[in-house]
Amino acid sequence: MKPVGPLPPEFVGQSGVLTIAGAPAEQWAADTPVFVYDAGIVAARIRRFRAAFPMVDLHYAIKANPLPALLDTVAPWVDGLDVASGGELERALAVKPGGAISFAGPGKRDAELAAALRNGATLNLESDGEATRALRLADQLGVTPRLAVRVNPDVELRGSGMKMGGRPSPFGVDAAAAAALVRRLIDAGADWRGFHIYAGSQALDAGAIIETQAATLALAARLAEAAGAAPPLVNLGGGFGVPYFAGDRPLDVERVGAGLAEGLATRAAVLREARFAIELGRWLVAEAGVYLTRIVDRKTSQGETFLVTDGGLNHQLAASGNFGTVVRRNYPLALASAIDGPAAETVSVVGPLCTPLDRLGDRVALPEAQPGDLIAVFLAGAYGASASPAAFLGHPAAAEIVVGGA
Amino acid sequence: MKPVGPLPPEFVGQSGVLTIAGAPAEQWAADTPVFVYDAGIVAARIRRFRAAFPMVDLHYAIKANPLPALLDTVAPWVDGLDVASGGELERALAVKPGGAISFAGPGKRDAELAAALRNGATLNLESDGEATRALRLADQLGVTPRLAVRVNPDVELRGSGMKMGGRPSPFGVDAAAAAALVRRLIDAGADWRGFHIYAGSQALDAGAIIETQAATLALAARLAEAAGAAPPLVNLGGGFGVPYFAGDRPLDVERVGAGLAEGLATRAAVLREARFAIELGRWLVAEAGVYLTRIVDRKTSQGETFLVTDGGLNHQLAASGNFGTVVRRNYPLALASAIDGPAAETVSVVGPLCTPLDRLGDRVALPEAQPGDLIAVFLAGAYGASASPAAFLGHPAAAEIVVGGA
Repeated sequence: MKPVGPLPPEFVGQSGVLTIAGAPAEQWAADTPVFVYDAGIVAARIRRFRAAFPMVDLHYAIKANPLPALLDTVAPWVDGLDVASGGELERALAVKPGGAISFAGPGKRDAELAAALRNGATLNLESDGEATRALRLADQLGVTPRLAVRVNPDVELRGSGMKMGGRPSPFGVDAAAAAALVRRLIDAGADWRGFHIYAGSQALDAGAIIETQAATLALAARLAEAAGAAPPLVNLGGGFGVPYFAGDRPLDVERVGAGLAEGLATRAAVLREARFAIELGRWLVAEAGVYLTRIVDRKTSQGETFLVTDGGLNHQLAASGNFGTVVRRNYPLALASAIDGPAAETVSVVGPLCTPLDRLGDRVALPEAQPGDLIAVFLAGAYGASASPAAFLGHPAAAEIVVGGA
Repeated sequence: MKPVGPLPPEFVGQSGVLTIAGAPAEQWAADTPVFVYDAGIVAARIRRFRAAFPMVDLHYAIKANPLPALLDTVAPWVDGLDVASGGELERALAVKPGGAISFAGPGKRDAELAAALRNGATLNLESDGEATRALRLADQLGVTPRLAVRVNPDVELRGSGMKMGGRPSPFGVDAAAAAALVRRLIDAGADWRGFHIYAGSQALDAGAIIETQAATLALAARLAEAAGAAPPLVNLGGGFGVPYFAGDRPLDVERVGAGLAEGLATRAAVLREARFAIELGRWLVAEAGVYLTRIVDRKTSQGETFLVTDGGLNHQLAASGNFGTVVRRNYPLALASAIDGPAAETVSVVGPLCTPLDRLGDRVALPEAQPGDLIAVFLAGAYGASASPAAFLGHPAAAEIVVGGA
């Protein structure tokens, strides 16, 4: 038997039938597989963030979940949207003015730069070459470009699932070159929007985030002083993680907020007038999503019982352990009809794909389940549907629905 | 510097500009990123197979690459198509009669079973429960079902990239239960089509495949004798690998053919009248595909040079090392304008996605490349476009074109 990850807090203590946004899971499962996103949980995360970070803006990094219906819901609750492609920019512009959108990404094509410039979105520049192209395109379009400098920080976020600083990186310009680029943008007449500094993601250690944010503030101050210019905005990145696996402990967000408040209170003079933003994706939406998939077959092979479901890694690649993880571990998972039912057996939950990679739960303890029953895989709100190989093996796409509300 | 994998034979010895199907790569790259599939290479693989295996049928497992234009081309060259979902069945039926199609997959839904039954495709049954559903649906539809039994073999394919036998498995029925299922199908009046036995995939060791095929023949004979019925067809599975990484050696297919010929010559009497099939996906099409992506930016970070391309793991997940591999290694990769150009520098080739996972080439030696140049990633014909998270980060889908011909 292998453990599963911890249930998100909203599902802890439920008994009997799993409910999502107050309704039984089965009510949302007319079509399966389906991703059910509870807007109420997103709203709760945003309230928690606002209480802990009254002094900073909140941006939603839509790469975590770009479903239009979710963006409709979330956009009014956040100060800005961060996008990573022309496609995401288009979705963001449907729900937010360009002035509240910023665009980061290492390989922006000319058409993407131009779309951002035309709509007044901020480009987080990733290199000198990109700056040259953005300035040239702005000139051609006759607009004043809104340009920020993405910095590859010289610190990394300790303990983060994905490190993006402190090493050679395709993201941003090296700290050593950032001040010169700022000067160049200002001298070219651009509307310089400040810095974007992203050191890592999926961190659960408050102390590590506090340390990184302090280093980020110091770096921004040093760069601003070197450039001789006060940044209008410093995007401090994100990095807030959620517990996926057994043994993971939730991030103490309030402690991070207190730490940042302290750092901001003593910030350098050159940052006195700056706004600050934190950019979150996963932390806002991951726990709001439940992937519901129906058992198609139940079988035994060489003493091991398999529940075969109608969805798998084609919709939830990360939950199968095949995306960005070295060791496969179980996401939290439950039988929807008996969320707190006593374990009756150890089973493996596998998807319908004809590959041994397609495993949603490896030897998990569950109440007895039969074909027709629903399996719920939690933490499906971020990097699920949009980050999985939907076309693989020709199965239908999963449905996605937003339920509940603030 | 890290090595890249070996070029497929058709590209070895090219000099200057990379050509695909006789034309310069640039000719196929009006839209990038693009997957270019050279039908001539597929045809060459099929000729090689036919010469080495004159005594068996050849099936194409379309999961490797289900592009309709490729299926149009390949279908007439093979004896059967193997599908893994209702979606794949639909594509197969567009190019082959149902009688030449078989359908394997552990979680077939009723609608998928019914579609196969209506069209006279063979269902490779994965469990007793699935057999019950298939028989009931056939009865409702008033058709004689064509049913084969997929067997979870008690041997595994040594050295295969993905083992599918010799262990508890969601695929097929255990060997110990297979004969009883065959009897049950025959007694129920089904058209029993034989056995489907798949022990693993992506093996490069001819000896291991020969051993597995011999064990598979012995298993099929034992099961047929136990069932008291001669199988019309034995699908011996596939498992033929292609060399992806430095140090990989190509499979000696002729040796496998000779080994199988020997095994067939001495096969048990109960298999005397059987046909035999080998089911190949990757080996037929992987080397025929080249993924062409254009350099958008060139940058240096802390002494490391990055070429940022317009495509990445959203199209070629496996090449980024994030699908089914534990250690990331480089696929074969070249600068299309100078395929044999002397290495001038060590660079990392990264895609446009805002994640450090998006790396197509890690510290590879290349001639000097600039924005606008094309990077070619080889071995893109199988498990590329259809097995990647195309929607991830909102970039456009890759183009896919079939060029050349038999």
